[in-house]
Amino acid sequence: MKILILGIDGYLGWSLACALVGETYEIHGVDSFFRRKWVKEMNSVSAVPIASMNERQKQFKQVFNQNIHFYKGDICQYDFLCRVMREVRPDTIVHFAQCPSAPYSMISQQKSAWVQTNNLIGTLNLVYAVKEYVPDAHIIKLGTMGEYGTPNIDIPEGFFEIEYKGRKDKLPFPRQANSWYHLSKVHDSNNLQFACRNYGIRCTDIMQGVVFGATGNPDKRHAKLQTRLDFDQAFGTVINRFCCESIISHAITVYGDGTQLRSFLPLKDCMQCIELVIKNPPAAAEYRVVNQFANVYSINYLADKVAAVCKQMDMDVEIQKLNNPRKEASTHYYNPQNQNLKSLGYHPTTDFQEEIAHLIQQILPFRKNVLLHKDILRPTIKW
Amino acid sequence: MKILILGIDGYLGWSLACALVGETYEIHGVDSFFRRKWVKEMNSVSAVPIASMNERQKQFKQVFNQNIHFYKGDICQYDFLCRVMREVRPDTIVHFAQCPSAPYSMISQQKSAWVQTNNLIGTLNLVYAVKEYVPDAHIIKLGTMGEYGTPNIDIPEGFFEIEYKGRKDKLPFPRQANSWYHLSKVHDSNNLQFACRNYGIRCTDIMQGVVFGATGNPDKRHAKLQTRLDFDQAFGTVINRFCCESIISHAITVYGDGTQLRSFLPLKDCMQCIELVIKNPPAAAEYRVVNQFANVYSINYLADKVAAVCKQMDMDVEIQKLNNPRKEASTHYYNPQNQNLKSLGYHPTTDFQEEIAHLIQQILPFRKNVLLHKDILRPTIKW
Repeated sequence: MKILILGIDGYLGWSLACALVGETYEIHGVDSFFRRKWVKEMNSVSAVPIASMNERQKQFKQVFNQNIHFYKGDICQYDFLCRVMREVRPDTIVHFAQCPSAPYSMISQQKSAWVQTNNLIGTLNLVYAVKEYVPDAHIIKLGTMGEYGTPNIDIPEGFFEIEYKGRKDKLPFPRQANSWYHLSKVHDSNNLQFACRNYGIRCTDIMQGVVFGATGNPDKRHAKLQTRLDFDQAFGTVINRFCCESIISHAITVYGDGTQLRSFLPLKDCMQCIELVIKNPPAAAEYRVVNQFANVYSINYLADKVAAVCKQMDMDVEIQKLNNPRKEASTHYYNPQNQNLKSLGYHPTTDFQEEIAHLIQQILPFRKNVLLHKDILRPTIKW
Repeated sequence: MKILILGIDGYLGWSLACALVGETYEIHGVDSFFRRKWVKEMNSVSAVPIASMNERQKQFKQVFNQNIHFYKGDICQYDFLCRVMREVRPDTIVHFAQCPSAPYSMISQQKSAWVQTNNLIGTLNLVYAVKEYVPDAHIIKLGTMGEYGTPNIDIPEGFFEIEYKGRKDKLPFPRQANSWYHLSKVHDSNNLQFACRNYGIRCTDIMQGVVFGATGNPDKRHAKLQTRLDFDQAFGTVINRFCCESIISHAITVYGDGTQLRSFLPLKDCMQCIELVIKNPPAAAEYRVVNQFANVYSINYLADKVAAVCKQMDMDVEIQKLNNPRKEASTHYYNPQNQNLKSLGYHPTTDFQEEIAHLIQQILPFRKNVLLHKDILRPTIKW
């Protein structure tokens, strides 16, 4: 089965390439290396050092005796994307090639416009390229649980059946996103739903929780196969950021009350889910939504867990509450469903403490990288 | 009161400038003249001849002794929009500066991407420029009833209160748009809702039905004050197109069964509504949605009405059903609400036959313009 990973150089893209090793998949990937550029813009680095794509490809070949076919370019360039699609003719396209940062999208007019255009046009180009060259291919698109916001009712998976003024219908669940980035994902969901209905394309739209964790193999042989791990305010997701703060004895910085509830999953669960989705494509013209997360936690709970793990490892870490740089409800109802992936066979990780301990062990050798960039741990982007 | 009309050279923009004549308003306008270019691209013209902006401004001054302050440029150029905002400091901005055509957006990847980017970024730039220079200004944004699609339940105005699994919330009504253009309006609605919540901007988002009609003054003195009236497949809305077909004895071309139900309003009702909205701004941070239409009709009903009017005027016109170039349900439930504008004082026109007769009278002198372009009456853009 031919897999095309758009955004193969990123946190999830590279992890997925490594996770799909074996005889089942022929792995092709596209990247523009924008993520490396964005993190530089934030004056930061990946805590875990990452190799160039060339080095990654070489070590992948050495270790697994398997090739990764790589195409450098930007999917917003339609001609480039078409050329890749014609050459590869993938069975499945996993689309990670987007700017994944809410804070980055909130910096300025220029950034807002860039993030929305980049994310929207990349996906729109993908729809056209698939329709043109591989109409049966399965598009796996990364959305976010943040598309839903925090409504006062249960959050189903994409659609819900409702009764209103005595009549019934099954309708898309309303989205209430809270950043230009999250909105770009809402726009994509709306576009993809139409693309499936109108062009008969098959798509799985993944509403993903916040991912944390590192690739997992500290073996020297695999040093160049590590995926990136960011800790800056724009590209460092919350648990990864907390862990990076902890290993340099910086306080764990909680935004606001910390009572916000969000959905989370370890990187290995993300890989497990995506492979399940790859193996179980929807029907032609089907637009399928899955909510992809393991558990719902408050930010305080996670901060406490990280601190507890640190204590066990004889690191004394404080938790510090900062004025929330974001506008978000601190107390709210939150009950999202995640049955669809479980029905496909997903077994969510329940022991987050162990996962956090594992992550801290993995990043400890790279303490210096975080220490050198500790100035960027305070949030300056506000909305 | 300073009004800034973005897209002042278009069908609705120019009509609004003329409708707001008087001491109450100081009228400023922006246009890039894209609409003139698009209609040329469709190998068509406005049935009613239109003057250049320069001529329009001159005649406006002669007839009404009032100035229209015009700024030529594209609101997707943020610096240009900021300059206008700084110079004008409007109280109200009426945002018509978008590509308004579903068929145009469905032509190709290039057009789809262009329409979505153009519409989205124009509105996003407007949000930023308002936040920066006139945070109290009222944004009046044109959406479309097409954002809602045709759900099997009543269509409220933007939001609805629902009960789901035993809990209640008031949520945005789900959108199910059926073209890349309609989706661009959905994206805008989602972006604006966030902009109001996050930046405290006040906005009225108008979900508008299909508008028809001409400006209304065939007086020679006003010849250069006429608004455009398109009849091509991309920019000619259905009743205008039917009337233009009729005056050259071309069959009235109904797409599909003609049983599709849509909401409609005459151009003069649109003007009445927009002025009501201008006069009744929402509160700061309020995102208000109004459904703007007079009546719901089937396409067949309107074709019959146009044919009946023609018969009264001794023109014998046939109705011809074409294979529907669009993918849309032919039979469906459709019950949209329009109480919000009525509460502000809107009196919908009920006699559509009279409006249609009036329109035909107005375009009859320009029969030749349609005749010269009759080749473009058949739809070739399909989805």
